[in-house]
Amino acid sequence: MNHRRRRIYEGKAKILYEGPEPGTLVQHFKDDTTAFNNEKHEIIEGKGVINNRISEFIFTKLNEIGIPTHFLRRLNMREQLIREVEIIPVEVVVRNVAAGSIAKRLGLEEGTPLPRSIVEFYYKSDELGDPIVSEEHITAFNWAAPQEIDDMMALSLRVNDFMTGLFAGIGIRLVDFKIEFGRHYEGEMMRVVLADEISPDSCRLWDIKTADKLDKDRFRQSLGGLMEAYQEVARRLGILAESDPGDRSRPVLVKSDR
Amino acid sequence: MNHRRRRIYEGKAKILYEGPEPGTLVQHFKDDTTAFNNEKHEIIEGKGVINNRISEFIFTKLNEIGIPTHFLRRLNMREQLIREVEIIPVEVVVRNVAAGSIAKRLGLEEGTPLPRSIVEFYYKSDELGDPIVSEEHITAFNWAAPQEIDDMMALSLRVNDFMTGLFAGIGIRLVDFKIEFGRHYEGEMMRVVLADEISPDSCRLWDIKTADKLDKDRFRQSLGGLMEAYQEVARRLGILAESDPGDRSRPVLVKSDR
Repeated sequence: MNHRRRRIYEGKAKILYEGPEPGTLVQHFKDDTTAFNNEKHEIIEGKGVINNRISEFIFTKLNEIGIPTHFLRRLNMREQLIREVEIIPVEVVVRNVAAGSIAKRLGLEEGTPLPRSIVEFYYKSDELGDPIVSEEHITAFNWAAPQEIDDMMALSLRVNDFMTGLFAGIGIRLVDFKIEFGRHYEGEMMRVVLADEISPDSCRLWDIKTADKLDKDRFRQSLGGLMEAYQEVARRLGILAESDPGDRSRPVLVKSDR
Repeated sequence: MNHRRRRIYEGKAKILYEGPEPGTLVQHFKDDTTAFNNEKHEIIEGKGVINNRISEFIFTKLNEIGIPTHFLRRLNMREQLIREVEIIPVEVVVRNVAAGSIAKRLGLEEGTPLPRSIVEFYYKSDELGDPIVSEEHITAFNWAAPQEIDDMMALSLRVNDFMTGLFAGIGIRLVDFKIEFGRHYEGEMMRVVLADEISPDSCRLWDIKTADKLDKDRFRQSLGGLMEAYQEVARRLGILAESDPGDRSRPVLVKSDR
């Protein structure tokens, strides 16, 4: 929008700009869709708009239940205002059902419920393909302190409980999701807060009845219908108005009630 | 030796036979040398004999410092008497210096000292190529209980301390090693004990002065001279007599002092 804004960081699906006040940033959702560490890349029109809305919806609810996040408010179709944080270079994956890399790594059939929710850590490095790591590596290389790991695990399990419930309520099985955390400094105080985004780009969401995939696996596995799936998730969350049955190509975004 | 003995298990480098008394087994060291999950395989004559002696030496010392192991006594050139244990299906790797898979996985140059010793867990599965796992997977799939993981970690770090010292004393840098643990039942009591073997097959050992590799990497990397390297380790440990300089092909094993 404001083209003189300073660009702080550009990732695969988002751009961070300098925010309007110190300590804030603007998180911009792009339509770029990537998989397999950028080997597969497409622009899927409108994806950024819908992810901005879904992520806003989830982060707002998480803030409400006392899970600290970087999210402040949505600014426009593609952008949200967030707190500036220092990203911890560890991706946290919470898994409830075997799918993706754990199915392959541990020889589990996709769809097998795990004995309990499993929290995994991956070192954020495109160059290395985000290798899986354990607390041992994280602490040895000082990517995060033991207390920060404990905080991330506890928050991740709370996010999992909340999201499992949220999606169960709208007929969707939360298979797994990836989240990131950052360090938010307020004066002398530092706390670990949820950062980045939560959207069908970062979750595996299966329709409970049909087992249809309503997430980025549609892109990874070239199943087609990615936008329709994301819109279906948004529609069930009450973000997207029921579109005119005769015109499914033009979903109407419900006006935010915030 | 006794060909009517019942074979309990045959692995890549060892065979376990029924032992002479209940609760014991005979661990037989083969000359088979394998790497890359059995893709590379050779018979290296005499390797089993020397690993039997090196492993005897180390396990005896570990028993002496109060680290519980399955080792009872050496029986002959290729065999040792061990306690029967239930192997925990987790390989424990302790690393002091970056080499092998961690160098590749985390983009570290081989030979880089790690910020501190790192303990890694791998799920024992030839079929899956022994994937790296964390405490989360181990407890979720019930491969080991949290207390057993704690015991394995504590024992592994003690083994690392002892072995680092042992090898430092003979001009060798202990880069990393792999160990396995088992559950030993005595009546109602169960305790976690060190099992399997410790030898140049399962350690990375670099000469402190020359950085020569004195371990199975000679085989993995087709450097040649594997037997000579293992004999050098045994010689420095005082197991192998200085061989006649004119006849390096026929090392003389020192008679055990046990």
